[in-house]
Amino acid sequence: MRDDPVLERRSVRRYTPQNVEEKDLRKLLEAGMAAPSAGNERPWHFVVLRDRGLMNGIMEVHPYARMLEQCPVAVLVCCDPSLEKYPGFWVQDCSAAVENMLIMAVQLGLGAVWLGIHPIEERVEGLRRLLELPEDIVPFALVPFGHPGEEKRAQDRYDPSRVHMDGW
Amino acid sequence: MRDDPVLERRSVRRYTPQNVEEKDLRKLLEAGMAAPSAGNERPWHFVVLRDRGLMNGIMEVHPYARMLEQCPVAVLVCCDPSLEKYPGFWVQDCSAAVENMLIMAVQLGLGAVWLGIHPIEERVEGLRRLLELPEDIVPFALVPFGHPGEEKRAQDRYDPSRVHMDGW
Repeated sequence: MRDDPVLERRSVRRYTPQNVEEKDLRKLLEAGMAAPSAGNERPWHFVVLRDRGLMNGIMEVHPYARMLEQCPVAVLVCCDPSLEKYPGFWVQDCSAAVENMLIMAVQLGLGAVWLGIHPIEERVEGLRRLLELPEDIVPFALVPFGHPGEEKRAQDRYDPSRVHMDGW
Repeated sequence: MRDDPVLERRSVRRYTPQNVEEKDLRKLLEAGMAAPSAGNERPWHFVVLRDRGLMNGIMEVHPYARMLEQCPVAVLVCCDPSLEKYPGFWVQDCSAAVENMLIMAVQLGLGAVWLGIHPIEERVEGLRRLLELPEDIVPFALVPFGHPGEEKRAQDRYDPSRVHMDGW
């Protein structure tokens, strides 16, 4: 386990051919589902992708998904908005789930990157059609995972100009 | 440091009177700013709150903020939408920042909870007025921090019915 997975996390877009084991995949999914959500509503679904044909299809509908070519597994986080107890919060809930998976990836020694889908309608429609998702399910974000094929050091992004005390 | 801060994180709403030290606050802010964002746009600002009068004011405009009464410090995550490079993604960026702070809190032995503000207009307006935020700044979420005054164990939230393989 890393000392500081939150600060060490970087977007990793190159992976070795090594597989991601089922036990690590399970931990990633546990991390996603451990996220907080409004009223603990947990409006999420997780589509695990290992099929090469589907990965290739996604590369055609998502402009920044070239890393799928080398990637052993990806997880598409989706929302079922009918599960919302507090309307308007599902994007926050699903974002917390994605971020949890990214941090767990660091802890497992894996690389990962957050690929945005929602609210870009072409990507939402493209993914929904390709994966035959129900009409009421929103594909939210795609996260490819793999053993890192590039080394990226932690980056200090602290910016004091963005911090305010007791008001603006 | 905890072994598994992502899975150990719970919403903690009771705090002891012990202060949160400046060095821990700094780590929380670093964690927020280490979050991924669309095109690395980092559209966030962080308002640190220690003033009791402001805390009391927030309890009047936010219906679920009673824990501020015992809380030594809170951070309001805000967005400046004019910093977006990729329109439509700022909620995801700021959510990742909030989640990072929650996980860092676990690592520091602190308790915290995500209080939603955006998109509930009364809360957005109430916070903006109280803290004299500029009109174009959106108060997004408030995170109180303190030394835990309640013990909450990790909860297994894994739900196999939310996992799908290579399609729906």
